[in-house]
Order: sequence, then structure tokens, then C-alpha cells
Amino acid sequence: MLRELSLPAILDARSTQFVLRSATSDDLDALMELLADDPVSAGRGDVAASDDQPAYLEALEHIIGDASNDLLVATDHAGRLVGTFQLTRIPGMARRGATRLQVEAVRVRSDARSSGIGSAMMQWVTDVAAPTLGSALVQLTSDAARRDAHRFYERLGFHASHVGFKYRVPSEASRAE
Amino acid sequence: MLRELSLPAILDARSTQFVLRSATSDDLDALMELLADDPVSAGRGDVAASDDQPAYLEALEHIIGDASNDLLVATDHAGRLVGTFQLTRIPGMARRGATRLQVEAVRVRSDARSSGIGSAMMQWVTDVAAPTLGSALVQLTSDAARRDAHRFYERLGFHASHVGFKYRVPSEASRAE
Repeated sequence: MLRELSLPAILDARSTQFVLRSATSDDLDALMELLADDPVSAGRGDVAASDDQPAYLEALEHIIGDASNDLLVATDHAGRLVGTFQLTRIPGMARRGATRLQVEAVRVRSDARSSGIGSAMMQWVTDVAAPTLGSALVQLTSDAARRDAHRFYERLGFHASHVGFKYRVPSEASRAE
Repeated sequence: MLRELSLPAILDARSTQFVLRSATSDDLDALMELLADDPVSAGRGDVAASDDQPAYLEALEHIIGDASNDLLVATDHAGRLVGTFQLTRIPGMARRGATRLQVEAVRVRSDARSSGIGSAMMQWVTDVAAPTLGSALVQLTSDAARRDAHRFYERLGFHASHVGFKYRVPSEASRAE
């Protein structure tokens, strides 16, 4: 948990308001469904399978228990979880010792995507969370297939200045083969 | 410091060996020069100015003191610092609760770039550090201008699957204007 952040917070979206708060283990099922409600994630194995629940719970507890990480969730007036993202504060040497704020795993429920909740979450990151946490830079990567997301981030003032590389570490089982 | 890593380690490069170890505050001047010895970094203000020394020292102490981060340095047989990179372990929900290992600020001294030290450092990350730290994914971003670096990472098995976005947070001075 990033204790400096003042949460819960109210997010003003286009026509309504959302509540932004830190996730708890009570949010686990809704978070798993939100991850699965996305074709790119589902293609990587995030399909809300009940067998995977212990692994997700362990990850959630890890994030919540870490002083440099937090998992945020946005809920609507009915208490439905409609958005989520993870923040990681990373100290660094480059750019004259700048601290970075990294955003991972941004997801919005498919039936809430025209509500303005995505913009409201990311503007809260750039305008509230980053200055509060002393971060000079906010960074994220987005799968090359997510063209709509790229236009969305550019509209918010992000620059597509970098190429994001991923290396999948072979599992112990496949390394032993 | 990532205490699980077994350091110092010997890195076998093409024709010679290097020692890989955690950075200490004694490395500060050499690290500042390594950051400045790169046109992309220099263009972002990393010019080894003595006025910036306190900010770099604070950043270095922050990284070293954090249990999810470490700054690594590679030295040659003469004890010269020829390479550096930062590691950050990031817990996550996506990809079934996978922990990621992020690499930032990879730099090799310009006069050591044909030695194989860059490959040896990155292979140590993917083959030794990532499995030791329980990371299923290694990730990094590289400035779009660094075409040679992109080929280098692809040769090592990284996939350029993502677009890296950066948002520069306005300084308090410029926000007050």
C-alpha cells in the first residue's frame, strides 16, 4: 500500500462519479473477472479459472502488503467494481535521480468503457498520485495490439517514446525438459 | 537490495570475465559518468554535473535500501566500472498473478561495447536473476531511438510486444505558473 495517497477518493467522470480505493481480498472474484473481461489478457491465461484463485490471492496480498505498490479499484454508485490498475513507485538514477510511478494492468469493465472512468483514473494518477508520491515521470506499457488504448494515452499527454520488451522466463518444468 | 541474489557473480563475456556486484555509494562518480556517456541520457539532463551529485546519491541510497530494487554494476579486470542496470521486482495480478522482474537504465561504457558485457549482463538477468527471484516475466523499455539496442534485446529472446508510454509530471514550479 502506498500510504501517502489519500484514499478513498472521488473521481469525477463525464456524467457520474466513481469511488477510487485500495483493493482488498474481498475484491478478488471481481478482479479476476475484470482481468478475464479482456481478449488480450484472456489470451495470456487470465480466464478467471477457480483453480487460479490461490495464485491471484497470493499476488493481491503481496501487492497490498508492499509499501511501494498498491492495487486500486474504482466502483460505481451500485458498488460494482468497474476499473482497476496497479501503481508501483520505482526509485531510479536516470533523469537526475528521478522517482518513477509505473502503472500496470489498467482494466475497465467492457460495459463501462464509455463512462469516462478510464480517463478519470489516469488523470488521478498523473495529477494527484504522481505529485503526492514525488514522481517526476509516470510510465506504462501497452500491448501493441491495443490501438484504441494508445490513442487514449496520447490524448492524456503520454508520449509513445519507447518500445516495450518482454521475455517470458521458461518454467522450471520446461527448463528441465 | 534483492537479498536472494548470489552476488558478486562472475560474468563470462566473449574474451574475458567481468565481476557483477551491487553498487555502493563509492560507485557514485563512475555511475554518473556512465549515465552521461550516452547521447539519449545526456539529452534528458544526465550530464554528470557536480550540482546533481546529491540527487544521484539520494537515488542510489534509495535503490540500495529497498528490498525490491537493486542497482548492479559490472567491473573489468582493472576494476573499471563498465556496465550497470537496475532491477525491480514487481508483484502483479495479470498473467495469473505473475511476479515481474523489470530492468531499467541499462548502460555499457562506450569503449566496452564490443566486449560482450551487455549480453552477459542481460543473460544473467534472464537465466539467473529471474528464476532466483521467482519472476515469470522480465520486462524493460528502450527508447525508440535506440535501434541497435532493440536488435540486441531481440537476439536475447525479448519480444517487442508493447509500446512504452511516458508522461512527464510538471514540476511544482511550472504548475504554479
